[in-house]
Amino acid sequence: MIFDMIAFDADDTLWENEVFYTHSQAELKRLLAKYMPVDDIESQVYQTEMRNIGLYGYGIKSFTLSMIETAITLTKGQITAADVQQVIGFGREMLTADIKLLPGVKQTLQGLADTYSLMMVTKGDLLDQQRKVNHTSIGEYFKFIEIVSEKNPADYQALLGKYNLQPEKFLMVGNSLRSDILPVIQLGGHAVQIPHADTWLHEKVEPAGEYSDSYTVIEHIGMLPDFISSFER
Amino acid sequence: MIFDMIAFDADDTLWENEVFYTHSQAELKRLLAKYMPVDDIESQVYQTEMRNIGLYGYGIKSFTLSMIETAITLTKGQITAADVQQVIGFGREMLTADIKLLPGVKQTLQGLADTYSLMMVTKGDLLDQQRKVNHTSIGEYFKFIEIVSEKNPADYQALLGKYNLQPEKFLMVGNSLRSDILPVIQLGGHAVQIPHADTWLHEKVEPAGEYSDSYTVIEHIGMLPDFISSFER
Repeated sequence: MIFDMIAFDADDTLWENEVFYTHSQAELKRLLAKYMPVDDIESQVYQTEMRNIGLYGYGIKSFTLSMIETAITLTKGQITAADVQQVIGFGREMLTADIKLLPGVKQTLQGLADTYSLMMVTKGDLLDQQRKVNHTSIGEYFKFIEIVSEKNPADYQALLGKYNLQPEKFLMVGNSLRSDILPVIQLGGHAVQIPHADTWLHEKVEPAGEYSDSYTVIEHIGMLPDFISSFER
Repeated sequence: MIFDMIAFDADDTLWENEVFYTHSQAELKRLLAKYMPVDDIESQVYQTEMRNIGLYGYGIKSFTLSMIETAITLTKGQITAADVQQVIGFGREMLTADIKLLPGVKQTLQGLADTYSLMMVTKGDLLDQQRKVNHTSIGEYFKFIEIVSEKNPADYQALLGKYNLQPEKFLMVGNSLRSDILPVIQLGGHAVQIPHADTWLHEKVEPAGEYSDSYTVIEHIGMLPDFISSFER
């Protein structure tokens, strides 16, 4: 068998994620409308997030703190405490939202788990990601679940080391070129991208020319088993 | 060798932690003094934290969000945005504070790591805990570092399963009866408590009588190697 481990990103690969962030930002924009018009709330929040990411890391709590900070800055300190509480509520809504698996996810994982060792590798809040795993009942298909703070080549290197995996026998599946695809192929691993229409700006990068032939793009997770079979032949 | 794995809690076992939370709450109390007197800020924040813990989990970002919420409630919505920004700043101070190893930690870990497999098992924010490991240069002594969202018996059970460890060959060392000691001895493992003067209210429990003889208390981590040696004889 060519793959000792098939690893999956989770947010926007297994379940919807970015759509909840987009929704919260729309709510924030509406909330701030009484103070001033905000043309592009997403780029305003994004700037705050990028300033904070080194301290806060990824996930909904970081995002909530960045939304509050953006609201204070944009309103020049005029936002009321009651409205700050609303913003905290947008974050809480996200933390309690129903988890929506993407189409085909359950069947595909179930099929692959019969033959392969599967791993989930995801960024975000520890507790929140565990909640999603528990509420979707796909946890049983994964031999290992790794919630990591970053997905750089060094992080994948550490992961491969931890589980004693050879990169050439490791396949990573995800929507983000930046986090799921490029770092893995840089290490000599295999990668399949399943693009998602809602992908966070931070995860959008142009693949360097040298790598553009080194990974496969499929439209839908249901196409993954055929891709893997063709590879094994 | 009787112990296949010696696991350590981190916050207030390897490095100072609670003292930074206490400091932030003192700053919050001072900030709120212009609105109203707060007699017992810690119990006010604690109540908010306990309401939020199921959603937010542990760590500094959760604590920051709970401080903001407490401030809004206590001031009956009168707190200004500028002061909310101050509260966010208290959290940022904690996330950038110097990490202070407790006395004897480095030497003890270094000595034990020659003979035993060591593991760190800690709650909190993923990125923040990794930052502490990286900044103290004690990471090299640990074979595994596990950042977990909760430390109930089921969580330890999962951990033992993941690393294929028998409870009777597992020793856990930590300051918290609730999180480090009782769940481990309930599973049939061994535990050593090193009490810390600053222990969060949430971690303070009275040991049930039936377990009070089942673990060892030492005053200082420097006494751990002797305890382990006596056990091995």
